[in-house]
Formats: sequence, C-alpha cells, structure tokens
Amino acid sequence: MGKQEDLEKKKGLPPGSLVYVGDEEASVTKISVIDYKGNVIEEKSVDTIEEALSYTKLDSVTWINIEGLHNKEVFKGVRDIFGVHPLLIEDILNTEHRPKINVLDNYVLMILKMVWFDPEEIDIDEEQISLIIKDQTIITFQEKEGDVLDPVRQMIRQNLGNIRNMSTGYLVYSMLDAIVDQYLIESERIASDIEKIEEEMVLHPDQTVLQKIYNYKNVGMFLRKQVWPVKEIITGLEKTKIIDLNTGFYLKDVSDHVIHVMDMVEMTHSMSTNLLDVYFSSVSNKMNEVMKVLTIVSTIFIPLTFIAGIYGMNFQYMPELDEHWAYPVVWGIMIAMTMGMLIFFKVKRWF
Amino acid sequence: MGKQEDLEKKKGLPPGSLVYVGDEEASVTKISVIDYKGNVIEEKSVDTIEEALSYTKLDSVTWINIEGLHNKEVFKGVRDIFGVHPLLIEDILNTEHRPKINVLDNYVLMILKMVWFDPEEIDIDEEQISLIIKDQTIITFQEKEGDVLDPVRQMIRQNLGNIRNMSTGYLVYSMLDAIVDQYLIESERIASDIEKIEEEMVLHPDQTVLQKIYNYKNVGMFLRKQVWPVKEIITGLEKTKIIDLNTGFYLKDVSDHVIHVMDMVEMTHSMSTNLLDVYFSSVSNKMNEVMKVLTIVSTIFIPLTFIAGIYGMNFQYMPELDEHWAYPVVWGIMIAMTMGMLIFFKVKRWF
Amino acid sequence: MGKQEDLEKKKGLPPGSLVYVGDEEASVTKISVIDYKGNVIEEKSVDTIEEALSYTKLDSVTWINIEGLHNKEVFKGVRDIFGVHPLLIEDILNTEHRPKINVLDNYVLMILKMVWFDPEEIDIDEEQISLIIKDQTIITFQEKEGDVLDPVRQMIRQNLGNIRNMSTGYLVYSMLDAIVDQYLIESERIASDIEKIEEEMVLHPDQTVLQKIYNYKNVGMFLRKQVWPVKEIITGLEKTKIIDLNTGFYLKDVSDHVIHVMDMVEMTHSMSTNLLDVYFSSVSNKMNEVMKVLTIVSTIFIPLTFIAGIYGMNFQYMPELDEHWAYPVVWGIMIAMTMGMLIFFKVKRWF
Amino acid sequence: MGKQEDLEKKKGLPPGSLVYVGDEEASVTKISVIDYKGNVIEEKSVDTIEEALSYTKLDSVTWINIEGLHNKEVFKGVRDIFGVHPLLIEDILNTEHRPKINVLDNYVLMILKMVWFDPEEIDIDEEQISLIIKDQTIITFQEKEGDVLDPVRQMIRQNLGNIRNMSTGYLVYSMLDAIVDQYLIESERIASDIEKIEEEMVLHPDQTVLQKIYNYKNVGMFLRKQVWPVKEIITGLEKTKIIDLNTGFYLKDVSDHVIHVMDMVEMTHSMSTNLLDVYFSSVSNKMNEVMKVLTIVSTIFIPLTFIAGIYGMNFQYMPELDEHWAYPVVWGIMIAMTMGMLIFFKVKRWF
Amino acid sequence: MGKQEDLEKKKGLPPGSLVYVGDEEASVTKISVIDYKGNVIEEKSVDTIEEALSYTKLDSVTWINIEGLHNKEVFKGVRDIFGVHPLLIEDILNTEHRPKINVLDNYVLMILKMVWFDPEEIDIDEEQISLIIKDQTIITFQEKEGDVLDPVRQMIRQNLGNIRNMSTGYLVYSMLDAIVDQYLIESERIASDIEKIEEEMVLHPDQTVLQKIYNYKNVGMFLRKQVWPVKEIITGLEKTKIIDLNTGFYLKDVSDHVIHVMDMVEMTHSMSTNLLDVYFSSVSNKMNEVMKVLTIVSTIFIPLTFIAGIYGMNFQYMPELDEHWAYPVVWGIMIAMTMGMLIFFKVKRWF
Repeated sequence: MGKQEDLEKKKGLPPGSLVYVGDEEASVTKISVIDYKGNVIEEKSVDTIEEALSYTKLDSVTWINIEGLHNKEVFKGVRDIFGVHPLLIEDILNTEHRPKINVLDNYVLMILKMVWFDPEEIDIDEEQISLIIKDQTIITFQEKEGDVLDPVRQMIRQNLGNIRNMSTGYLVYSMLDAIVDQYLIESERIASDIEKIEEEMVLHPDQTVLQKIYNYKNVGMFLRKQVWPVKEIITGLEKTKIIDLNTGFYLKDVSDHVIHVMDMVEMTHSMSTNLLDVYFSSVSNKMNEVMKVLTIVSTIFIPLTFIAGIYGMNFQYMPELDEHWAYPVVWGIMIAMTMGMLIFFKVKRWF
Repeated sequence: MGKQEDLEKKKGLPPGSLVYVGDEEASVTKISVIDYKGNVIEEKSVDTIEEALSYTKLDSVTWINIEGLHNKEVFKGVRDIFGVHPLLIEDILNTEHRPKINVLDNYVLMILKMVWFDPEEIDIDEEQISLIIKDQTIITFQEKEGDVLDPVRQMIRQNLGNIRNMSTGYLVYSMLDAIVDQYLIESERIASDIEKIEEEMVLHPDQTVLQKIYNYKNVGMFLRKQVWPVKEIITGLEKTKIIDLNTGFYLKDVSDHVIHVMDMVEMTHSMSTNLLDVYFSSVSNKMNEVMKVLTIVSTIFIPLTFIAGIYGMNFQYMPELDEHWAYPVVWGIMIAMTMGMLIFFKVKRWF
Repeated sequence: MGKQEDLEKKKGLPPGSLVYVGDEEASVTKISVIDYKGNVIEEKSVDTIEEALSYTKLDSVTWINIEGLHNKEVFKGVRDIFGVHPLLIEDILNTEHRPKINVLDNYVLMILKMVWFDPEEIDIDEEQISLIIKDQTIITFQEKEGDVLDPVRQMIRQNLGNIRNMSTGYLVYSMLDAIVDQYLIESERIASDIEKIEEEMVLHPDQTVLQKIYNYKNVGMFLRKQVWPVKEIITGLEKTKIIDLNTGFYLKDVSDHVIHVMDMVEMTHSMSTNLLDVYFSSVSNKMNEVMKVLTIVSTIFIPLTFIAGIYGMNFQYMPELDEHWAYPVVWGIMIAMTMGMLIFFKVKRWF
Repeated sequence: MGKQEDLEKKKGLPPGSLVYVGDEEASVTKISVIDYKGNVIEEKSVDTIEEALSYTKLDSVTWINIEGLHNKEVFKGVRDIFGVHPLLIEDILNTEHRPKINVLDNYVLMILKMVWFDPEEIDIDEEQISLIIKDQTIITFQEKEGDVLDPVRQMIRQNLGNIRNMSTGYLVYSMLDAIVDQYLIESERIASDIEKIEEEMVLHPDQTVLQKIYNYKNVGMFLRKQVWPVKEIITGLEKTKIIDLNTGFYLKDVSDHVIHVMDMVEMTHSMSTNLLDVYFSSVSNKMNEVMKVLTIVSTIFIPLTFIAGIYGMNFQYMPELDEHWAYPVVWGIMIAMTMGMLIFFKVKRWF
Repeated sequence: MGKQEDLEKKKGLPPGSLVYVGDEEASVTKISVIDYKGNVIEEKSVDTIEEALSYTKLDSVTWINIEGLHNKEVFKGVRDIFGVHPLLIEDILNTEHRPKINVLDNYVLMILKMVWFDPEEIDIDEEQISLIIKDQTIITFQEKEGDVLDPVRQMIRQNLGNIRNMSTGYLVYSMLDAIVDQYLIESERIASDIEKIEEEMVLHPDQTVLQKIYNYKNVGMFLRKQVWPVKEIITGLEKTKIIDLNTGFYLKDVSDHVIHVMDMVEMTHSMSTNLLDVYFSSVSNKMNEVMKVLTIVSTIFIPLTFIAGIYGMNFQYMPELDEHWAYPVVWGIMIAMTMGMLIFFKVKRWF
C-alpha cells in the first residue's frame, strides 16, 4: 500500500505543502474547459491553468476539468489566481482523503470518490474527484481520465434537460447525480453477485467461497466508508448559496438516491453475514455426512471381524469348529447382525 | 434481476426523463375515477387521463386510480395538466424507489410499497403505489391490478364510517390504513410461520431448514426496508395542510400500527437469529450421537478382536492353546470386558 | 394463534368498528363500581353501563371496572354517554394492541399489559388492561377476572396511605404501581430461574436445556416489548392535568421501577446469551471426551491387533514361530507399546 | 435470592410503608455523628436519632452516619423530624434499588452502591449507601459497617485538603470521590484478572476457564448496572444549590473518573468476549490434535492388519505361502507402506 | 500492571495531592524553552521552572517543554507561579488519565496520548502529553523524551508555514496535527498488518495466528479509547478564545483527520472480526480433511479385513477353502469392493 511511507514523508512538512499522496503516476496533466450559456457553448483543451481560468467570466458557466494531479504549476495557479486556501489544495492532492465538504466565504470545496466494483477480484477501485465551486465556475480534479462525468458532458453538448439555461448549482447537481448513480449501479451489482454465490456455496462450501464472502464484506465496508459522508455533504451543500430553491429540489432527489445506496450497502452486509451462517452449516453438514459413513461402516464390520477372529483362534478344544453346521450358522449370525445394524441406522435416519 | 441494465440505460439521460424501471409488463393502462360528495357518488372507467382530470372539480373528492405504468400519454397529462414536476414523475415510474414523501407547495407525493408474503417461496412480492394529493384530488399509481385498496373502495361505495362526508385527508388516511393493515397481516403470518419451523428443526435439522431460516431473515430485512420509512412519511404527512385536526387523530392511529409492525419485524429477526442457535445445536447434537455410537462399538469390539487375534497366532509354544479350560476362560474374559465397558458408558451417561 | 384471521376479518371494515380481537371467550361481562370520597365509600356490582356511569358525579372518585370485552352494549354506552372516540374503543377491544397512551382534550386513554410468567412452560401469559380517565372517573377494561389490581381495591377499602382523600391521579398512580410491581416480580423470577438452569446445563448439556434458553430469550423479548412503552406512557401521563405536583412525585417513583425492570430484562437477555456460549462449550467438551476415549482405545489396540495378525499369518517359513521365547517376547513388546501409549496420553493430558 | 418473596410481601402495602428489603440481618443499628467547622470538630456515637439530629445546627457541617437499616425508630425520626418523604424512606430501605438521585425543594436524596470484587468467587459484593443532604447536614445510610468512607473521615479528622473550611458540597464530593475511586480500583483489578486467565486458557482450555469467563461477563454486566446511573446522578447533583462553582469543578473531576470506569467496564466486556473466541479455538484445536492422532494410527495400522489378515487365510492353494522369500517381502511392503503414510502426513503438516 | 497499588496508595489522600501515577521512572526532569516572535527565536535548556516561566512575556510565544514528571519543584512552580489548579496538576501526573480538555477562565488544560504501535508484540505503547495554554505560553508535559513534537520544533526553527508570525493557537494546532498524524500512521500500519496475516492464516490456521488476531483486536480497542475523546477535545478547543477564525479553519482540518483515524480504527475492528470467521473456517476445514482421510482408509480396509478374517476361521467344514479358484476370487471381490468405495468417494467429491 505504501500509505505509511507517504504519510511519514509528509510528517515533517508544514500544513499546506503541495505533496501528492496517491498511487497513480499520470505522466501528463490534461486541462479541458467547457463554457456555456444558452445556445453558446465552447469546449476546448488548454495547456496552462492561466488560460483555463481566463474563461471564468461572470456571464457564463465555466467547467474546468483537470485530469492528473502531478502538475505543481496548475495548483499554484488555482491557489494564487483562483484564491483557494493551501490547506484545501493539500486535501485535493491527498487522494486518500475522506469525502467531505468545506464551505468558505466565497467558494466551496467538495471531495468525493468515484467507485468501480471489480467482480473478478471482488474489490473496489476508487478515484478521488474534487470540486471547487466559485461564482459561475466549477473546477473538477480527477486522478486519471475517467468516464463517470461523461454523461454530464453529453447533457451539456446536447442541452438535455435544458441544462445550458440552468445555474451553476444545476451543473453541480448533475455531477453529484452521475456519481451517486454510479454508486447505485455498483451496489446493485454487488447485491446480485452475493445472491449468486449463495447457490454455489450450498453445493461446494469450500474455502474459496468463504474467501469470497470475506471479500464481499470488505467491499461493503469500504463502500460504506465512501457513501456515508455523501449524505452530510449534500446537507452541507443545501445550505450554500450555490443551491437555489429550484436546484434544492433536485438535490433532495440525489439525497434520496444516497439513502437508497446506504440501504443497499447495509443489505449486502446483512446478506453476507447470513451467508456465513449458511457456509458454516454446510461445512458441518459435510462433516456430519463423513462421520456417518465412517460410523456405519465401522459399526457393521468391526463386530463381524471380531466374530471371524473368534473362530480364527487356535485353541485345541473349540467344539464348534468341528460341527458341520457351525460355518453356515456363523454366516447367519453375521447377516442377522448386519441387518439389525442397518435397521438401527434407518430408524436413526442416518441414510 | 436486470436492475443494473435498467439503471445503466438511464445513466446518460437528463433527470426527469420518463423511463419505466420495473419488472411488470402490463400491456394496458387502466384509468378509473371515483368522485363523491355526501350522497352523490360517481364511479367510472375512463380512457384518457384528460377525461379523468376533468373530474377534479373543487366541490367533491376525486380519486383517480391508474393501473399500469407504461402509458406515456398518461404521465404527460399528469405532468402538463395536473402540474407535477418531471423528477417526481420519474420517481413514480422507478418502481425500485424507496418509500418517501415529497411535500411541495400545492401538492404532495407519497411513494409506498404494498407487500405480499409468499409462504411457499418464503419471499416478499412487492408492488409500488404512488399517491399524488392536490386539493380535493388523489391520483394513485399502481404497477398492476391490486386489491389492497379494495376495502377503501367498498367503504366509499357503502359510505362506511361516513367517509363520503369526510375530507380528502380522511381518504388518504383510509388508504394508508389499508396498506399498513396489510403489513400487519403479513408480518404476523411470518412470525407464526417462524414459530412453526422451530418444531420441524429440532426433529430434522437439515440444510433445508437452515435455508428457510436464511430466507426468513432476508424477508425480515426486506420488510424492514419497506416499513421503516413509513413512520417518517406519516410524520411528514401530519405537517401538511391535507391533514386537519380530526384526521390527524386517525393518522396517529396508523402511526401506532406502523410501530406495531416494526416491533413484529424486529421480533421475527430475533426469533430467526435464536433459531439459528437451536439449529447449530441440533446439528452438533446429531454429530455427538453419531460419534457416541462409533465410539461405543469401537471401544467394545476392538479390544475383543485383539484378544481373538492373540490366540489366532501360530506360535509353536503357546501353552494356553492346549488347555481344555482356555477357550471358555477367554470367552469369560471377553464378556467381562464388555460388561465393564457398558458400565463405563452408563456412568458417563452416553446412553 | 389465529391472529391473521382476526386481522383479515377486520380488514374490510371502516375504522372504529367494534370488533373484539382476542383469545378470551368470556361469556359474561362483569361491571363493578367503587365510589369514594374521604370516609364515604360505596362498592357495588351493576348490570348496565348506564347505571355505572350514573356514579360519575364530580365530587367523588369513581372507579368503574369492566371484566370481559364481549358486551357491545357496554362499549356503546362508553362511546355515546361517556364520549370516547370510536377509534379508541376499537383499540381497547383489540387485545393485541401495543401499550400506549392517548391524551385527548378531556380524557386520557392508557393501554397496558399485565403479565404472568409461567415457569413450567417458560412462557408469558398477558392480559390487556385499558384505562380511561376523565375528570374524577376511571374506567378500567380487563379481558378476564384478574387480581393485579386487587391490592389497589384493598388500599381503598382500608384507606391505606390515605388514598381516599387523594386525587384521581393518585388512584391512577396506584394502579400503575401495582402493574409495574407485577413486572418486577416476574422479571426477578425469570432472572433467578435462568441462574438455576446454569448448573443444570454444565452437568447435562442436552437439547432440552437449549430449548429452555431459547424460550427464556423469547420470554425476555416479549417482556421487553410490553415494558419499553410504559416508560413513554408515564412521560406522557406526567404532562396531563391528571397528575398534579404531589402525584408527579409518586409517578417518578413508578418510572424508577420501570427502569429497574428494563435493566432486569436486559440482564436476563445478556445472561441467556452468555449461557448459550456455556452450552455450546459443554457440548463440544462432551464431544471431545467421547473422541478421546475412542482415540485412546483405538490407538492402543489397533497396533496390537496388527502384531497379533502378523503371527497369525500362515507362511511356511516364519522362523520366529518355532522359537520357544517368541510368544513371551511378543507379549512383552505388546505390554511395552501399551505403556508407551499410556505415557503419551498422560503427557498430552488426555486423562 | 428470595427477592420475589420480599417483593410479594410488599405488594399489598400502600406506598411509603417502612419495610426493609435486603439480605443483611444487622442486629444493632449504629448511629455516629461528626460535626465540624474550621478548627472545631466533634465526633460521637449516639443512641437515638433525635440526639443525632440535634446537631443539625446551621453554622457547622454535620455528618450523621447510620449503619444497619432495621431500626424503625430511626426512620420515623428521619421522616418526622427531618421531614423526608415516606416514599424516599422506602427507597432507602429497599436495598435492591437502582442508583438514583431525587432533588426536592429543600433536600436531596442520592442512592449509590459500594462494590467489592471477590476474585475467588468472581463475584461482586455490593452494599447500598444512601445520602440525604439538607442544608448543612448529610445523613448517610449503610447496610452494614463499611470502610469505603473511612478515608473521608480521616480527611476530616486531619483536615486534609482544608476540608473543614469547605462547604457541605465539598463533603458530598469527597464521599462520591471515595466511592468512585473504589469502582476504579475494582474495575482495574477485574481487567488485570481477565488478562491473567488468558494465559491459563491457552494451556488448559477446560470448562473451568469458560466458567470463569462467564462469571467475569456477569460481573462486568453487574458493575455496568451500578456505574452507568452515577453519571446521571452527578449531572443531577451539579444542578442543585448544594454544589457551588468551586465544588462543581471538583465534581467534574469525579465525572471524569466515572467515564474512565465506564471505559474500563466496556473494555473488560470486550476482552472477555474476545477470550471466548480464543477459548473455542483452543478447544477445537485440542479436538483437532486428538483426531490427528487417531487418524495417523488408524490409517497406518488398519491397512497393515488387512495384509496380515490376507496371509492368515486358510485357503489350500495360496502359492505365496510356500515361498521362502514371501515373509520378508510382506514385511518390506508393510514398512514401505508405513513410510509412505508418514511422508504423506508430513507433507500435510499433521505433525 | 500495579495500577491498583498506585490507586490504593492515593485512596486515603485528599484530592489535589501531587502523586505521580505511572510506569516510567525518569531520573531527571528536563526543561526546555522555545521563545519566538517573527525573526527572533530563542531556544534554551533551563534548570528550574522559575527560569522557564520568566520567559512568559506577553509579546512573544513561549513553549516550555517538560520531560519527566518526577520533579515536585516543577509542579509546585506551575501551581504557585503559573496558577494552575492542584486538581489539574494531579491529572497531569496521573498518566493513566483519559484524554480530556478543561477550559478554565484564564487557561486551558488538554491531556492527550501519543501512541506507538509495536508490530512485533502487537501492542500499543502510549505516552501521555499534557498541554497548558495560558495567554501566549504553552507548557507541555511528557513522561519521557519523545519525538512526536520534533516536527513542530523544526517548523519553528525554520519558520515553515510562517509559523513564527502566527498566534499561540496555531502552535497548539501544529502540536495537535503532529499527534493526530501519528495516530493516522499507526492505524494505517495496523490495517496493512492485518491484511498481511490474512494470507498467513489461510495457509497455517494455528493458535499463533488466532493469538495475533486477538492482540489486534485489543490494540484496536485501546486505540479507540485514545482517539475517540480527541474529537470532543477539538470541539471544546474551538470554543475557546485561543482559537481565532483563521486557526479554526486549520483545526477543522485536524478534526477531519481524527474522523479518518476513527474510520480506520473501526475498519481494523471489522477486518479482524471477519478474519476470525476465516480462521474458524480454516480450522474446521483442516478437521474435515483429517476426518476424510480417516474415513476413506477405514471404510476401505475394515470390510476387507473382515473378509480376510472369514477365511482365517478354523472351521473344519468350509468348502470354499479347498477350491483352487477361491483365493483369486476373494482377491477379485476385494479389488472390486475397493474400486466401488473409491468411486463412491469420488462421487461424494471427497478427494
């Protein structure tokens, strides 16, 4: 994981130092700008943050998207030209940060996670996305090129839902909606995957299945950690001036979706816990079956072997040995004993 | 389940798009209207939403019931003529939605679930019912033809409880009461079913019973998800102007019933958890019994077989073999050993 | 249980219909009146509710006790003459109702449960008691003849604690106190019974004991359901005008007792959960013991039997067989092996 | 325990009857008085409560300590002369009472528990101590002669911390501090005892150890029941006029200690729960070991015995039997099989 | 641990006595002073507390660090010259104290814990650090020489983050930040260590691994106890006048980090609980495997041995014995039986 090393490296530095804490080594930082108002829309890739920030005119909505967090120049620009507090820049760069919202006098910072469930590894891939909202401008920071916000771009390009005539708040809402929808998709997938392993488990309750449940539990735990704070973030956002009465109504809808995701996550947790009980039961049933086979075979043949042993003794005076009827009689006794045992097991419902 | 596909399909669309997310493929949408005031009652099946909405006169209570959610024209009418926000229409169409209430300036939306417990499959069938209340009009949306609200219809037809002279709020209350009564019936049934499998379990603690408990736990979890929000919905409803002082008193009664259902659901949860312990104990008792049989048979016969083996050896000089008394003496020793063992097991209370 | 049938029967009826939901088929409804003020006390059995209600004069405390809930005339009287809302009458008749308080403008309804612990069946018998308090009159409704309120009657007859000069509130307090004392007695009995089965369990951890723990858990769960709401009921009662400053002080005392009962119930829950662990441990210890006996006997005699088997082989050229010393030597080896095994088991602390 | 009998005995009596509910049969009630102000201190044993109450002059702090609760005269004095409500006297006499505080107009009652942990029996001995504080007088009631308050007496005698010039509130604080310190000592002892049995358990995980954990859990549960309410009691005390600004600061310190005790109690609970897992694991490891020994011995010797059995058969035509090399070859095969088995077990890491 | 002895020693003393309760026997108490304002910085080791306190001039920030808590003169100086309440001095000396904040009229006391995770012993080493903040002066008390605050010293020396021009509040923030960063580092390390033992466990689920999980759980429990109160401490600190608007912003950042640590601690708890399930499953799988080997070998060879036993009997009239084909036929039967068994086990998926 290497997190400790990162953290220890930061330890001696003053707060607000621009150090990137993350796994992703993006070689190039891409800056793109979408600027729109009504029918006018301009979409452009730019090279420097200064050029991007020049679009932040008051009479149009400007969305600056920054992919890759390695370019120090970009963050210096955001700090010095756009006026974001160094401590918040530090939070944006620390990609292990907990989702949160910071409401300041003239701008708002939101840190969120985009998640992708990997059904092969039963693991969650996550990417941090940070939003700075100031007046009519939104700057988004992503660790790498992602596609969760692509539908939002499409909506702007095609003016779906009349987004180009809506406020900045509506754009923020659209982004949140896209991210939360992703949570919903992934949590539904996890739930349906857990349902699938249930059948698998009853048939072959081996260590592999247990490992899977264990992983699903960790996945759920991880997802919960990312989703829970979103509820508070939306509550915090509602109180800002970014969100007017109209947008607030939309935000309430996202809030409902978040609660739905939280329900799903809780349900997957309960389901995987219940599955564990089924697993342990299956294992002990298998054990029981094995024990029954052993016991049936042993209790039938061990007494028989004893009888055979008796007449294998070499005593000089064993009168039975010389009798003609003795051998068939012994066989008869043995068969009778076996029958008796089988009836006993039948009564006990062992097979 | 196909939920992810549905959700993914919606992903790229702007909020408020009218896409039906649900399992049910109802070919026809049925619209019926009940309009009453005092002695006057009119009940009619209509073809278009426009016709239905023409009944929304101010001086009588109008209940428009819509069965089936596939007809886009209906929702366009509700949106454009009746003035419901597109986002809420979307919520009505998304039948996976969490129960909720939206209180707006001039109308209220409630989304609830009707549930049916299937005792064969140990599963919950659910159907979403949405209510829009505006002035004297209530529009209800159901996925398919249902009968939970039939008693309410009967009450109106026969003017039971003088419902025809009561306010719209009283009609809302009657519907809520019918739905919550259904919860109560189903949760009582689940509780009594769980009690029944207890006996079954102690006798034959096999995998099937465990599977049942597992299903009951999931059922309880699911029911809880549907019932919990109803408490909040009622609280939200109480604050609206739909509910006057008189109706508020009735609503308090429904609220009591919801708490009772919540108690029942919690109790079924505890009961099934406790049953699991009984199950695991029964399994391990069965195992114990099997082990005891094996041990008793083995510890009696293995030593005896050894003795028989001794005198089956072919050494030339085994003085005992030639003695006349040797064979009966060996038998005597064997019987004595067996007796000793049996006494030992008796003392240990193994049988 | 038949609850569902009852509930389903009610389903189609308007709210406030007088249908009795309960197990008890009392053939006759008994109405008795106690009316007192200072030195004057009148106690009488009456036939009609009208007669009873005629005692509700303003200048004396009137306690009307109704045993049996089948007489519709009685409830019509209470509804029409005494002025109680039909919905509340319905609640009184539904004996499965959750304990609750309804505070109305001019009267108060309390629904409570009297409980009796049945130590043989490890079950809780309960009876619903409803109180309507209006001005100086208290009407109590019981399902069958009970004795929990007998001490209160004695107090009135003998004017213990000067009850005859106290307010109606004090009578309500006395009744609550009698009911909660009953809870206390039963919960203490349950706790001490659970302590007793602990010893039983360690000695003979069989299925019966587990069944008992399971029942105790259900009993605790049930008791909790009845006791928890009482706390709220008292809080609600404290806010009414029935309770003056002086009585409020007494009520606080009952509240303390309820908390004590809640503590007891929680403790019995924890104790029975802990007992389960002891149970499972005892079972697995028994299993361990059985396994050890099997293993000791098997590991001693199976190798010995093998040696005996060797010299039971019929090869022509087995030089040992002809040696004089061979037989004693084999015995020596066998005894040495047995000794070695025994020492091994001793070292392993298997016995 | 006999609690039920006690409770049932009280059932028919009016509230406020002076009946002692407790285990302790103290034959004599001892009354002692400490009266101090600045340099003046008077300490005396008195015979009647009247004499003790004569010290309650306004210009000095008076501490009346009553040991033993059987003397009805004492309580009549406290009720009639000192003016304490009969219901509170009843609470003082009921030594099973939950810790609580009653704040009245002119006096305060606190009921607390002194606890002693008995490490031999793994049990908690408790004694109820009640405090009545009125103006400058504190009356303490103890069931039997105790020593938890001895340090407070020493402090007064030696004027440690200048206590003799402090207010009544400071004396109350000192008593509370002494009692809570006792909690701290006992909870620390319990925690360190639990740590000790951990080692014992891994070595010899027998039923005795389990019994101990079970007892520690009950002890923790019991202690929690006594400590939790103390937090509330202090909060309640802070609001009274007994506690001035200066003493409030000291009381906050006691409050911190109570939280510390609560932490300790929670930790012992978690530790003993965790130990249970270690216990069950140890048991199943032992079982595993036993099973391995059985399996190793059985799988080695059962096949060998079979081979010996083969050549013990008496068929006329068994060509191998007559060959000179046959016997050593069979031995060779047997040794090879044994070796193979041992290697198999080694690979499987069974020993 | 010896805590009880310490506590008992304190029992008889008045509150506020200066007794050191801790494990560490530091022979010498070291006092160092850092005094800075803008470009001026003075750093010095002093011998007496009087000398250190002489630096507390109003126009520069003074940080007095005291290592070792044995020197009574120091505490007398802090009490008498600096004016700290004896009870708080006592809290500083009691190194088992719970983290807390005391806000007084003119100074603030904070007690915190520095923690170090020892991965070898799977244990937490902790050291108490107390801060007294009064005007421009901060006094820190440490049990022994530590390095958690070293980065803060470096920041002051090199004026990183312009700390030398910031307020006292900023210095407090820097210290808190250093301590919380340490929590973060240690909790991340614990989480990653727990992930590592997961693999180890599945391979060799022995008692050692269980012991480790048990220790990790205790570590988590301990860490939680130290971290939880920090949240409240920061909330308390925010309300004091030490923290101005600017520093409050920084403090909010530390608060976020504490929440992150709390999340980490909760996650390690869940992870270790889940691991326990994996452990128990691994153990029972091993057991299952052992049982299968035993059962396979036994069920194959016990019947075969019986057949061999049959023809080892010495009856005179056993016609099969004299037949030429008998011996090969018996072999054939035996091989067929073995094959049948193997197929049976294959079908049952036992290997």
